[in-house]
Amino acid sequence: MTTELETGLPSVRQIQTLIREEQEVELKLTTNDLLTGKIRWQDPDCVCIFDHYDQPTIVWRHAIVFLKPKS
Amino acid sequence: MTTELETGLPSVRQIQTLIREEQEVELKLTTNDLLTGKIRWQDPDCVCIFDHYDQPTIVWRHAIVFLKPKS
Amino acid sequence: MTTELETGLPSVRQIQTLIREEQEVELKLTTNDLLTGKIRWQDPDCVCIFDHYDQPTIVWRHAIVFLKPKS
Amino acid sequence: MTTELETGLPSVRQIQTLIREEQEVELKLTTNDLLTGKIRWQDPDCVCIFDHYDQPTIVWRHAIVFLKPKS
Amino acid sequence: MTTELETGLPSVRQIQTLIREEQEVELKLTTNDLLTGKIRWQDPDCVCIFDHYDQPTIVWRHAIVFLKPKS
Amino acid sequence: MTTELETGLPSVRQIQTLIREEQEVELKLTTNDLLTGKIRWQDPDCVCIFDHYDQPTIVWRHAIVFLKPKS
Repeated sequence: MTTELETGLPSVRQIQTLIREEQEVELKLTTNDLLTGKIRWQDPDCVCIFDHYDQPTIVWRHAIVFLKPKS
Repeated sequence: MTTELETGLPSVRQIQTLIREEQEVELKLTTNDLLTGKIRWQDPDCVCIFDHYDQPTIVWRHAIVFLKPKS
Repeated sequence: MTTELETGLPSVRQIQTLIREEQEVELKLTTNDLLTGKIRWQDPDCVCIFDHYDQPTIVWRHAIVFLKPKS
Repeated sequence: MTTELETGLPSVRQIQTLIREEQEVELKLTTNDLLTGKIRWQDPDCVCIFDHYDQPTIVWRHAIVFLKPKS
Repeated sequence: MTTELETGLPSVRQIQTLIREEQEVELKLTTNDLLTGKIRWQDPDCVCIFDHYDQPTIVWRHAIVFLKPKS
Repeated sequence: MTTELETGLPSVRQIQTLIREEQEVELKLTTNDLLTGKIRWQDPDCVCIFDHYDQPTIVWRHAIVFLKPKS
């Protein structure tokens, strides 16, 4: 069984754009944590965000409440 | 694998109407956050809402508790 | 892909009865909100409840904890 | 599409026994609510519990944390 | 439709071992409850734990955060 | 039915690397618990983390919010 990213979905495509443009984002999580950084990759289960010290955090999609590009 | 929006569902159709009519809505989230704005698009995983400053927020459906058109 | 309401399930049928009889109900949500009103429609993802001012709220099923007919 | 109760599962069978024997139970919910009463029916999505005043509450399985027969 | 326990999974096998060896465990739940006892059975939806008074509690897997053998 | 780990996914592969390199990690959970230790194995439902006293904790994936290698 292989699950692939559904690259036709607007939400997946928008995240791909945020990755390519190295746009800083805020991720609000179910625990109320707010992570800030740049998304480096996504897969069907997770997204990976790097903070200002270039440290990675793997975030599970089921724990994401919303994503906001920093303006 | 492609998941498409089930456009026959009342909930999906109502959101399409809210998008088309640029109706302002409130989204209550599992974190108790209340977002206000206009929905711009939806896909099977997310809806995207724009606030009064025209800034987008991508909200995961699994984190939505309820949606209420502002009257 | 079409997902239809499983009208054979007791829970779905009971909600259909509540809709038809315009019975007032309480919906307890994962955020601890308690909504009161009459259910107008249901689909596989959501139920829609109208409050005393006849304002609709679309509630996601995943956020419902319990439903109680008001006695 | 029809989803039927998997009557071969121990958890489903135990609940069937609790229904048949009209055993009083406690249901702990994700909101920390604790409901007490007798289960009257179950389906793949919900269980229905009647309290001491014989009032029904339809509880979504996804909101159940644990079930405990009252001893 | 029949869902069977995937007995090839490490997590399922470890729980089978804990059952067979009557090992005391701690179950941390999404409500922050911490249950202590011995697991008696598991199925795809639930595990059943018996406390020191030999009283059963049926716990839904979706509500389990972690499991820890007591050392 | 057999569910296998999707070893092609970046998130699964990164965890495999963390296991092989015995890298210390932090796991943030939906209960706000923060577990620290080394991941020993993963399967489609769980990951198992060993703490400084070499005691195992089986963590359900649905309860994981994020994972962070300790730097």
